[in-house]
Amino acid sequence: MTLEQISPPGRLAEAGEQISAQELALAARNHGMPLEAMRADLTPPGLHYLLIHYDIPFLEAAAWRFAVTGLVGRPLTLDLAALKAMPARTVRVTMECAGNGRARLEPRPVSQPWLVEAVGTADWTGVPLRDVLAAADLGPDAVELVFTGADHGVERGVEQDYQRSLTVADALDQDVLLAYSMNGSDLAPQHGHPVRLIAPGWYGMASVKWLVGIEAVGAPFTGFQQAVAYRVRRDPHEAGTPVTRIAPRALMIPPGFPDFMSRARVVRPGPVVLEGRAWSGRSPVERVEISVDDGRTWATAALDPSGGHRWAWRRWSLPWSPSPGEYVLSARAITADGEEQPVDQAWNRGGFANNAAQRIPVTCLTGV
Amino acid sequence: MTLEQISPPGRLAEAGEQISAQELALAARNHGMPLEAMRADLTPPGLHYLLIHYDIPFLEAAAWRFAVTGLVGRPLTLDLAALKAMPARTVRVTMECAGNGRARLEPRPVSQPWLVEAVGTADWTGVPLRDVLAAADLGPDAVELVFTGADHGVERGVEQDYQRSLTVADALDQDVLLAYSMNGSDLAPQHGHPVRLIAPGWYGMASVKWLVGIEAVGAPFTGFQQAVAYRVRRDPHEAGTPVTRIAPRALMIPPGFPDFMSRARVVRPGPVVLEGRAWSGRSPVERVEISVDDGRTWATAALDPSGGHRWAWRRWSLPWSPSPGEYVLSARAITADGEEQPVDQAWNRGGFANNAAQRIPVTCLTGV
Repeated sequence: MTLEQISPPGRLAEAGEQISAQELALAARNHGMPLEAMRADLTPPGLHYLLIHYDIPFLEAAAWRFAVTGLVGRPLTLDLAALKAMPARTVRVTMECAGNGRARLEPRPVSQPWLVEAVGTADWTGVPLRDVLAAADLGPDAVELVFTGADHGVERGVEQDYQRSLTVADALDQDVLLAYSMNGSDLAPQHGHPVRLIAPGWYGMASVKWLVGIEAVGAPFTGFQQAVAYRVRRDPHEAGTPVTRIAPRALMIPPGFPDFMSRARVVRPGPVVLEGRAWSGRSPVERVEISVDDGRTWATAALDPSGGHRWAWRRWSLPWSPSPGEYVLSARAITADGEEQPVDQAWNRGGFANNAAQRIPVTCLTGV
Repeated sequence: MTLEQISPPGRLAEAGEQISAQELALAARNHGMPLEAMRADLTPPGLHYLLIHYDIPFLEAAAWRFAVTGLVGRPLTLDLAALKAMPARTVRVTMECAGNGRARLEPRPVSQPWLVEAVGTADWTGVPLRDVLAAADLGPDAVELVFTGADHGVERGVEQDYQRSLTVADALDQDVLLAYSMNGSDLAPQHGHPVRLIAPGWYGMASVKWLVGIEAVGAPFTGFQQAVAYRVRRDPHEAGTPVTRIAPRALMIPPGFPDFMSRARVVRPGPVVLEGRAWSGRSPVERVEISVDDGRTWATAALDPSGGHRWAWRRWSLPWSPSPGEYVLSARAITADGEEQPVDQAWNRGGFANNAAQRIPVTCLTGV
């Protein structure tokens, strides 16, 4: 077989087609965050979502180097000790996969089949990228920085190391980090050990893991992950628009208890506090609204203070006191700019940024 | 709706039926171990497999108590400090879900859809259960110990806290622990924080998480997870036999690099070391055999020493030097007792203990 045969083009599922063996294999590797983990400000280690395009590289911290090359006055090669010797910054970031919500789309793009759980929040510590670029004397002709990871594979026929770029303007944001620590510990292998990029507010594809190089370039990067993948398209032949910052989303911790197999939720009559988290990589979340009648009416939830964490989710809560019967619970986020999380799907061929509001069917049983 | 309607009986998938939305929701919560993690003796935090029947309880360590009751001379209530004051023991354990391999069965039992990755290895530290039972003066009439976890849900119509039992003989094994530490750290919420049972050599369902009680009973336990679930049956109406100790299995790290979507593997001509791990909760693994021709011929791999870790996987390796072409790679474990991991499925309605050998199609491309 050739690489093209091994690695066919993207496709949409047929009407009524369920999850394929290939989608299942991806779901078994790339795990989501059980929604009850939203009880914690910081996602417990091991529950943060993971999306790994190829295999996890297992890099030795002692042997790791990364190079800053291209349109810079002073090309650099740094090791971990040199990076850690520079002033550090910690940023709390809610990261979400660009494909979150994909498996809820109709028709369904065939890829990693996320429902709503591809999210997590962590404190990332590292060196602001702009300090490293200053040390390398970033040249005036540079328009983008191209970040290369150590993960290697083939995708739609293109063999590649994972690469993404940021514009110089985006890269110079003080919160963009070369991170070597997650919640105070060294990065785990699956989170980019020993060093990864963190681009707060962006979907996760921008935060290149297992970083081995940064190249300053004089023209927009046209690599696979920038120009082919991670584009919003309705037609397969259009150029599309790039996937960039995280669309507003609120999620609820499903109340009560579940059935093992169906995950259907059961509550008993009486007071229960509905709670969850809301975030946006665009304008900040300003309001969260909750429906218990499948979107017919909405009530405004209480929103906890942000604590100064611009890029982290915020907790919301709303008391509820159901009587016996059937309910469908939803939450939606509205930003300071007035962007409203939709109830209906935002369909595109790649299945990106589908922030259609969650729907949680709940049965309130009679009595105890 | 009633609990019975919310929580229907188990079923088998129809011929050709792909993975359902319910199975996908389970797969998004309960993650497997990416097979490349077998490079490490200890599974990196966050990559150990997880199977959680209901929701993860978030228990406060300071408020946690557990009671030893029933047929004991001295009923006990212990807190975490009291448990940690007792002599500790550390045991390295390869744990595997009883349902590992289920989604490869034909016909497929509809439940958590594991392929082969529901496994992980950790150093667990805690107090030998037998020391706690001695402190409680376990009575001569006790035949089993029933362990109750804090996780609550409904399963096939039965509302329950998760409960499993061990016979007194099994419970008194020196390696059965009340564990409060995993790889030297406090247990993460998803691994049973603050205290769980660890029953080395048993499938994971025996190692009850979020432990809140132990009751010594005078007759075999007939709770749902013992008498209804976790039984090997071919007919839905037979009593079946209990799922107990882990069947022998060898797994291989897929060589080369993958296609993102299909996970198909690509290698280039020349030497590569095939490697992986093998384990058994029954008689120890004594030999691992590798096939590169879809099971027609087998070669014996080198097996690393056990390092005295009776309950942990052992690394195996075998050099391979493919020429361009198509291959199907498999590994199988054989125990000291002569139990041989099968190439074909061991089918049962619950989809338990299917240790059919892994099949990894690999393309060796021409040249560089």
